[in-house]
Amino acid sequence: MKTTQHSGAITFAKGFLASGVACGLKKNGKSDLAILYSESPASAAALFTKNQIKAAPVVLSSKRVASGSARAVVVNAGCANSCTGKKGMDDAQKMTNLVGHHLGLPEKEVLVASTGVIGRTLPMDKIASGIEAASRSLTVEGGEEAARAILTTDTFAKEFSTTIQLGGKAVRLGGMAKGSGMIHPNMATLLGFITTDAAISKDALRQALAQAVDRSFHCISIDGDTSTNDMVLALANGRAGNKTITGLSGDGAAFSQALTQVCQELARRVVLDGEGATKFIQVTVKGGPSFEAARAAAKAIATSNLFKTAMFGMDANWGRILSALGNAPVPINPAKVDVAFSNLTVAKDGSTVNFSEAKALGLLKRKEVEVHVDLHLGKFEATVFTSDLSYDYIKINASYRS
Amino acid sequence: MKTTQHSGAITFAKGFLASGVACGLKKNGKSDLAILYSESPASAAALFTKNQIKAAPVVLSSKRVASGSARAVVVNAGCANSCTGKKGMDDAQKMTNLVGHHLGLPEKEVLVASTGVIGRTLPMDKIASGIEAASRSLTVEGGEEAARAILTTDTFAKEFSTTIQLGGKAVRLGGMAKGSGMIHPNMATLLGFITTDAAISKDALRQALAQAVDRSFHCISIDGDTSTNDMVLALANGRAGNKTITGLSGDGAAFSQALTQVCQELARRVVLDGEGATKFIQVTVKGGPSFEAARAAAKAIATSNLFKTAMFGMDANWGRILSALGNAPVPINPAKVDVAFSNLTVAKDGSTVNFSEAKALGLLKRKEVEVHVDLHLGKFEATVFTSDLSYDYIKINASYRS
Repeated sequence: MKTTQHSGAITFAKGFLASGVACGLKKNGKSDLAILYSESPASAAALFTKNQIKAAPVVLSSKRVASGSARAVVVNAGCANSCTGKKGMDDAQKMTNLVGHHLGLPEKEVLVASTGVIGRTLPMDKIASGIEAASRSLTVEGGEEAARAILTTDTFAKEFSTTIQLGGKAVRLGGMAKGSGMIHPNMATLLGFITTDAAISKDALRQALAQAVDRSFHCISIDGDTSTNDMVLALANGRAGNKTITGLSGDGAAFSQALTQVCQELARRVVLDGEGATKFIQVTVKGGPSFEAARAAAKAIATSNLFKTAMFGMDANWGRILSALGNAPVPINPAKVDVAFSNLTVAKDGSTVNFSEAKALGLLKRKEVEVHVDLHLGKFEATVFTSDLSYDYIKINASYRS
Repeated sequence: MKTTQHSGAITFAKGFLASGVACGLKKNGKSDLAILYSESPASAAALFTKNQIKAAPVVLSSKRVASGSARAVVVNAGCANSCTGKKGMDDAQKMTNLVGHHLGLPEKEVLVASTGVIGRTLPMDKIASGIEAASRSLTVEGGEEAARAILTTDTFAKEFSTTIQLGGKAVRLGGMAKGSGMIHPNMATLLGFITTDAAISKDALRQALAQAVDRSFHCISIDGDTSTNDMVLALANGRAGNKTITGLSGDGAAFSQALTQVCQELARRVVLDGEGATKFIQVTVKGGPSFEAARAAAKAIATSNLFKTAMFGMDANWGRILSALGNAPVPINPAKVDVAFSNLTVAKDGSTVNFSEAKALGLLKRKEVEVHVDLHLGKFEATVFTSDLSYDYIKINASYRS
């Protein structure tokens, strides 16, 4: 029987506990520190930001996760502990040390993630009391509060879970994510945590996560900026009792597909909640000479400020789509490009066609907008998700620190 | 004696006439078609957009200017004649044909440039009557109206002129430009026209223009998008009577410097008038391993939406500067980077330092903001100019077509 539980999804899989507490990092008094815990040893895999400037928790967690196993993660919102020098590294380590102490784990089994303002050091007294409180309040029911505690300017928690059957065993996967600003593909992106009770080898988990992220978090863009703190982590503790997955075929393929789905649903929610977003925009490029080329072309459109403001203004200005495409880092043949909004063709062979502006406006008024581009250069297709660029994006980002 | 005449600068050099007329392309009835004419044969050099999608006038003019000479240019604003297929190419050619007819020039001596909405075809009846009127009204005094006719969402005309002495002869240079949206470095960028009465060979003019653009229009960014219509053109008719310049040393160096100055002043005005801009921001990166690396690092900062919105909000959020830098396509050493607003250091060795928020706010409240970054990786320095990202950028671009 398929069971899902989106709210509190991070503790949907067997053997995971979580908690979220307020320790004073957020000025509004909301929860700002979360701990995620596996009751038994777990395989761990993670992807991190490709920004050359990596926050202290990214540096520490990437070293530790190389072992392929972890038991707990501590996450704080409100302060990114980025560009904080040696003190930042010491603080990140201290956070894991405190969690290890309270949970009776070796510190190397604890990972850490932070999100928030860059360039400020953590108030370690608040963090220490937050860690103590969060360690004490770990429960199966704590997933929901954990998902809220990791948010910054997000307006809702992002959670998703699913169940698959492997050899007669129900295998559960659940995840939570945090997005809003600085979201751009080709990076591990934002914060994403996925837990599963699947039995899976370290290597297989690593491969499955890389594939899932490549088809989800790497296919979204909100503002073209990439954070110093991005991190996506998967923990698998084997409690489902399935035959251990060791590769990506057979059961591994089914698991990989489910993991991709969880990541896609989380990524989708991140775009829906993009800073100031009024629209969810799907840019699909087909006819590409390769998946990578199609994705690069779709990204060139999805990251164009002129395109994104036109979408906010519900303006069927397809010229901006073509122009953005012309700036893509992959060869196109301008004379072959077709553009459509949903099924309404607005340009053919790179040139203007007669179309109903009223119909176009009808499509662009929708909350979800579909842009379809055909390059006519091959068989590959890619979809990138983005949001529009609105007044509120400016408002939120003009005064984020204050 | 040094004479300058910024207003009407495009006809400041001897032997150039210009005109600007309204032919109905702009809804507000303002001038929208300009002709620029050299009374005698002129060397010509130009740079064009690197967008893979090139508007019809770009395709035509780039073919023609390869000969190294031209006598006239016709420019229209309000319709870009881009993504317009075969009809667009025919229309562009027809425009030069009409100008040649009215001025008694072979059509191959006439270049064409267009700016405005992409994907619409030119109303050729209006264009034809505009060309006829503009051909009839060419005068030395027409430079000022020509500079206004090439504008779109610009709020003021961009003009600059200067005079240099070469072997006892006064050599004049003047230019006009059109900017506002879709302004991004590494492209010939927007529309820029420079006239000079210098005697200079085709090759030397080409070299001098390439160098000038590399240090001016290639160092500015407003929204990271690059138009399909960008073009910078220089015409030199030799009327000054100086000894013909054949290279970039001696007189050639002085000429090249003056041309660079004209291009820089025009580029500066383009940024000042960036769509919705409230601030002129100078990002200087020093300590780069090469000029190109320093410029790439400066561009990474100057094109970050998060950085640009923080500047609009006068928020000393230097973490966004470091984060943007970390996304640059050149290697940096995060632990070595220093950041300052004017002379106020806000980060050292990639990490937070104590600084006066009040002082920072004072600097960020200014109309002109200076960001200084030291990579400590070498001896090279580059400066990129940009604007902030404001509510008005969204407003202007959300409904540009209507």
